[in-house]
Amino acid sequence: MSSKKTLGIAMIGYAFMGKAHSQAWRNLNNIYDLPVEIKMVSICGRDDEKVKEAAEKYGWQEWETDWKKLINRPDIDIIDICTPGDSHKEIAIAALNAGKHVLCEKPLANTVAEAEEMLEAVKRNPKSKNMVAFNYRRVPAISLAKNMVDEGLIGRIFHIRARYLQDWIVEENFPLVWRLDKNKAGSGALGDIAAHSVDMTQFITGEKIAAVSGLLETFIKERPLLQDSDNSKEIKMGKVTVDDAALFIGRTDKGSVVSFEATRFATGNRNDMGFEIFGEKGSLKFSFEDMNVLWFFDNTNDREYAGFKRILVTEENHPYLNAWWPPGHVIGYEHTFTHEIMDFVECIVKDTEASPSFADGLQVQKVLAAVEKSANNDGKYEKV
Amino acid sequence: MSSKKTLGIAMIGYAFMGKAHSQAWRNLNNIYDLPVEIKMVSICGRDDEKVKEAAEKYGWQEWETDWKKLINRPDIDIIDICTPGDSHKEIAIAALNAGKHVLCEKPLANTVAEAEEMLEAVKRNPKSKNMVAFNYRRVPAISLAKNMVDEGLIGRIFHIRARYLQDWIVEENFPLVWRLDKNKAGSGALGDIAAHSVDMTQFITGEKIAAVSGLLETFIKERPLLQDSDNSKEIKMGKVTVDDAALFIGRTDKGSVVSFEATRFATGNRNDMGFEIFGEKGSLKFSFEDMNVLWFFDNTNDREYAGFKRILVTEENHPYLNAWWPPGHVIGYEHTFTHEIMDFVECIVKDTEASPSFADGLQVQKVLAAVEKSANNDGKYEKV
Amino acid sequence: MSSKKTLGIAMIGYAFMGKAHSQAWRNLNNIYDLPVEIKMVSICGRDDEKVKEAAEKYGWQEWETDWKKLINRPDIDIIDICTPGDSHKEIAIAALNAGKHVLCEKPLANTVAEAEEMLEAVKRNPKSKNMVAFNYRRVPAISLAKNMVDEGLIGRIFHIRARYLQDWIVEENFPLVWRLDKNKAGSGALGDIAAHSVDMTQFITGEKIAAVSGLLETFIKERPLLQDSDNSKEIKMGKVTVDDAALFIGRTDKGSVVSFEATRFATGNRNDMGFEIFGEKGSLKFSFEDMNVLWFFDNTNDREYAGFKRILVTEENHPYLNAWWPPGHVIGYEHTFTHEIMDFVECIVKDTEASPSFADGLQVQKVLAAVEKSANNDGKYEKV
Amino acid sequence: MSSKKTLGIAMIGYAFMGKAHSQAWRNLNNIYDLPVEIKMVSICGRDDEKVKEAAEKYGWQEWETDWKKLINRPDIDIIDICTPGDSHKEIAIAALNAGKHVLCEKPLANTVAEAEEMLEAVKRNPKSKNMVAFNYRRVPAISLAKNMVDEGLIGRIFHIRARYLQDWIVEENFPLVWRLDKNKAGSGALGDIAAHSVDMTQFITGEKIAAVSGLLETFIKERPLLQDSDNSKEIKMGKVTVDDAALFIGRTDKGSVVSFEATRFATGNRNDMGFEIFGEKGSLKFSFEDMNVLWFFDNTNDREYAGFKRILVTEENHPYLNAWWPPGHVIGYEHTFTHEIMDFVECIVKDTEASPSFADGLQVQKVLAAVEKSANNDGKYEKV
Repeated sequence: MSSKKTLGIAMIGYAFMGKAHSQAWRNLNNIYDLPVEIKMVSICGRDDEKVKEAAEKYGWQEWETDWKKLINRPDIDIIDICTPGDSHKEIAIAALNAGKHVLCEKPLANTVAEAEEMLEAVKRNPKSKNMVAFNYRRVPAISLAKNMVDEGLIGRIFHIRARYLQDWIVEENFPLVWRLDKNKAGSGALGDIAAHSVDMTQFITGEKIAAVSGLLETFIKERPLLQDSDNSKEIKMGKVTVDDAALFIGRTDKGSVVSFEATRFATGNRNDMGFEIFGEKGSLKFSFEDMNVLWFFDNTNDREYAGFKRILVTEENHPYLNAWWPPGHVIGYEHTFTHEIMDFVECIVKDTEASPSFADGLQVQKVLAAVEKSANNDGKYEKV
Repeated sequence: MSSKKTLGIAMIGYAFMGKAHSQAWRNLNNIYDLPVEIKMVSICGRDDEKVKEAAEKYGWQEWETDWKKLINRPDIDIIDICTPGDSHKEIAIAALNAGKHVLCEKPLANTVAEAEEMLEAVKRNPKSKNMVAFNYRRVPAISLAKNMVDEGLIGRIFHIRARYLQDWIVEENFPLVWRLDKNKAGSGALGDIAAHSVDMTQFITGEKIAAVSGLLETFIKERPLLQDSDNSKEIKMGKVTVDDAALFIGRTDKGSVVSFEATRFATGNRNDMGFEIFGEKGSLKFSFEDMNVLWFFDNTNDREYAGFKRILVTEENHPYLNAWWPPGHVIGYEHTFTHEIMDFVECIVKDTEASPSFADGLQVQKVLAAVEKSANNDGKYEKV
Repeated sequence: MSSKKTLGIAMIGYAFMGKAHSQAWRNLNNIYDLPVEIKMVSICGRDDEKVKEAAEKYGWQEWETDWKKLINRPDIDIIDICTPGDSHKEIAIAALNAGKHVLCEKPLANTVAEAEEMLEAVKRNPKSKNMVAFNYRRVPAISLAKNMVDEGLIGRIFHIRARYLQDWIVEENFPLVWRLDKNKAGSGALGDIAAHSVDMTQFITGEKIAAVSGLLETFIKERPLLQDSDNSKEIKMGKVTVDDAALFIGRTDKGSVVSFEATRFATGNRNDMGFEIFGEKGSLKFSFEDMNVLWFFDNTNDREYAGFKRILVTEENHPYLNAWWPPGHVIGYEHTFTHEIMDFVECIVKDTEASPSFADGLQVQKVLAAVEKSANNDGKYEKV
Repeated sequence: MSSKKTLGIAMIGYAFMGKAHSQAWRNLNNIYDLPVEIKMVSICGRDDEKVKEAAEKYGWQEWETDWKKLINRPDIDIIDICTPGDSHKEIAIAALNAGKHVLCEKPLANTVAEAEEMLEAVKRNPKSKNMVAFNYRRVPAISLAKNMVDEGLIGRIFHIRARYLQDWIVEENFPLVWRLDKNKAGSGALGDIAAHSVDMTQFITGEKIAAVSGLLETFIKERPLLQDSDNSKEIKMGKVTVDDAALFIGRTDKGSVVSFEATRFATGNRNDMGFEIFGEKGSLKFSFEDMNVLWFFDNTNDREYAGFKRILVTEENHPYLNAWWPPGHVIGYEHTFTHEIMDFVECIVKDTEASPSFADGLQVQKVLAAVEKSANNDGKYEKV
């Protein structure tokens, strides 16, 4: 129907992130005016039956069980990696070497060493665009926060506070899923959710976390294994090998004080990722449970009329929102992905660098590694 | 790809509502498991260029400028009417008579008389499903509120309060768009937004508004006409013929006291539609600016631990949400439409009655007419 | 100890309001620097035992059971009337005629006719200061709101909305106390709490309510009589003769649209009196449950950074607050009375007119009477 | 007037805390029914003129410039110490040795060694009651939180988070007041406000902070000295010798993870002390800006109706509140002191141990010392 150039997409993985990315790819051309046509070529997963189902449900033309078969296809331009962290390195490097653009879910890798290998591949393949899927950057309110910092509305920053609160494993009988297995997931709350907080706050402030004192905790040490097929009634227990909660305090390269907390044991908080930034000229606050709102305190106001202002981020001149609904009509979680891939596609079209790049992902990985090292070394400050 | 039966859709209108409905039709099969395949056959509008553009942008296979050509096509099963209120009657009746299912934007019509004619057509065509697009019913939090009333958690209701606050025409130079023209729109805030509030609260409570004392106000009586093509510099003014604000108080058939307010002059409130229901056993509160939240006060609690509870309506067992994201991941405005058409399609598939039906739409229309009549009769109570 | 002139106070009534006024009188000289010394001379009530106890508890030097004995004492300068509304007229007129300054609890009287008689007495005794105890005016946030309107920060007002929500008689076995008896109380929610809302909003906006359409409702028509001393087990029922809820819509003398609601059946809301004012240049919101906070939307902001601002009204340059704690240290309900009597004493000292005066109280009474008349006349608009 | 036994009070210090404590002493007998009569005998301060003024303003019978003259007077039973921390030890020990009951402002002392000496004096004088003025324990909402933990509504605690946010010295020209001088104040945000957070959370949870990793920061290193009397125009700068912000993470004796932050650089937050406790069965949240509210999440609820409940802590059966106003009528900051001295007096009357005792104050001091030591030792965990 359209005479536009086509961009072929292949996605590896079809679980939660696969569903979310598919929603974004499927609607991209219907929401944003882009000079390319998105073609959802193939989705890949190991379970033949399930990946077929996912392909039909989410709108992919084909499905595949071996990702290697997709890597060299000429009709595929972008590899979108939505698998657990232990497979990121292999897939991403193969894709980059094959000249594909790569969008990779976070955390970039399970270790700094793996992330560094991936960055090497990026350097060897300068034509391939690379991006880590820190989707929270694309919440309009968060993007607006960054713009406000850039415009000087906050001034010198004193405090950066971030927290990511979940509660999905408070129940002690919740089973030992892959996210609780260090071999698969690399780490627990640290890599899964603190990673988002680190990227988000560095993005907003332009400051890099430079030194940290960390603390990791696993509240429940053993959990029931996922049921086997043999229908045995006996519940077998396995060891939780990742952190349930990750906290750290420290400083940025500019001297701001930071305080981070990520936990899966914040009873009553389903998925509340938020931040507070206190600066000389102003302050900002955000909570994902109210994702269309940004709070701003303008310290240049006379105190008589000063206060935190609740900005409903749904105006046409707010980031990403000219494509959506009239002011006051809120958007939801999934459009962090719509905005993310819109930006990624635009970088490909305009041949500019994508952000957050794999280099950014590696830097986040180094922060996480420093937290872990400090936590294992009696909390001693660790430089990033 | 699929062996499912196909449902062909034609949409009349391509503005705000057209965009929103398109988003819903486009994704329906990707979100919900339905035994039919949605086919977005054709979109219709009077401006050839613009409707073509809309078709491409929103994912319709064809476009058309004369809705009458669509009415009898065998590949079209549903007519989705997204035009201004003055054309609803003619299109809907033609579509019903042609055996099509009809989804019609609200208000159902510009007058009670028109709505009654439409209901006659419904009665003559019992096989055609009919639904009015009061999409706010399909906000999960609002649907949950209805369930809670049905389960007896609120008990006898004392007060029903609703308000719909917008501020898009506070600026006195805002031009005289069609929504400010009684001939096109039928009424102002009354039909446009109070209609939503009336349907929503009646839906939740199961009570019907029985008598009202109304007040209508037009704060700014004249506005600049939309610019003509002749580029004349002189600004011509035209008369605003609808209400800027509509208020009424009254009682329901069960004796609850009601208080409604709809306005386009609530400076600072972009699109805040909300309600409060105070009952014997409990109370409920909702504001659309925080659309994923429902507040509940349980009056059976000891007062020591009693308080309004902030229910984040994102759980799998909340209405409509099993199809979406994990708990804590909020959804946005557009999915009120996804849920609405999901319900409509399900009614077609299962051959059950859709709700809100044209009969419900007529009843809302009668409430609005009573408000208008009372307002023009010194506020005297008017029975619905 | 002090060489200051003394002001002798006598208070009639010792229930809730007596306790609150006593707290204020007792601390006035310790909080504000005034050129007079407050002397709490005598408290008066009909029950000898109870009034004696109140005198000791609340810090009065003497007690008395016959208010007439206090009226002419030379050591008493101010008569503070805290009795039910049916006795206001007699006491106030006697006190004014005796040359005393009079502070009278609201509503000023149970009928317009009584209030008019009281105003006659005021006119005959120009040296006596007179004030109605609409204490909510003295909430710092409400006083700040008035200042902001006066400074032009709100501009032309479109909407004035007020509500006063209580829930203390939702339980159907709550007994028939004097506030539910028209002979004692004059009216129910209307005179008791809507009166506050009317005074408060007129104070803030400087506009007078000019015409209303009213609705009164008594949800529970009969209640148990208060237990007699004869220990009979049989519960006797009596008729509730006042309104449980009072609503009205209307217009002010400047053309603003008003919407008021006062109820004792707002389950879950203990004492939430609040308002919203929507204007051309800005809007204001307030809720007494968060009495140290005023919300302000500045419509002259660019929409990119616009939003309702949460002003914590605890700064030294906020009304009344220079006498209190450092910023951020909130104050409570009782200081509405401290501020009120501070203002009243200042008027006496400086020989200026107190506000709200009995004339203001009469005007509020007329609004309430118009609401009642409209409610009894099918909701027809009634001019004030 | 009363035949009750008298308790004579002497207060040392007349600044902010002196004013607040005076308000409490002055009203105690008017609010609570106690078997003793409070007599405000004398207030003491070094500046003769100012202390005389304070005595008159705040209701003290006498004033004094040498605290030693008050210590042995037989008409004085309680010494209330409201001076800066560097004088606490000397005054408290002298008072205890003289057989007086001692209420001492926090922090108990400027060093652990001083606090230990004070505790020795306590042990030598078992008849003297001793209490540290951690007044936030007496916020009704905080006291309610403790009761809820004690009743088992929270269960095993995972996370204890506290923060105390102020912003009074963000401005770089704010002068070098005594609170910024280590010799006077002992420390900055750490001893001044983190001390409150430590006491409060230990009080609520019954857990003791056992190990910490700390971070201290002074954002602005030099500030203008307070103006001398010589009227020289030249501004002299002095060194800030205390922390502007104090953060720490760690664990309690029961294994809960803690995260604390106290700062005077939280732009926009005047005095927001708050906590969050996440447990197995429930969670609690509190912010002092809304001091009459406690948030409670009950994890035993079905998730369909679960959510954080906003408990307005103004009911008669809430801690301390039977003495105050009807439900819904909020109280203010100063009554934390009213409740504190009510409890202290009750301990004296009933001869029971006061809480928080000097022993509790010493334990808090040890936590603060451990934070400081860790901060000076590269963040290494320090045991308390």
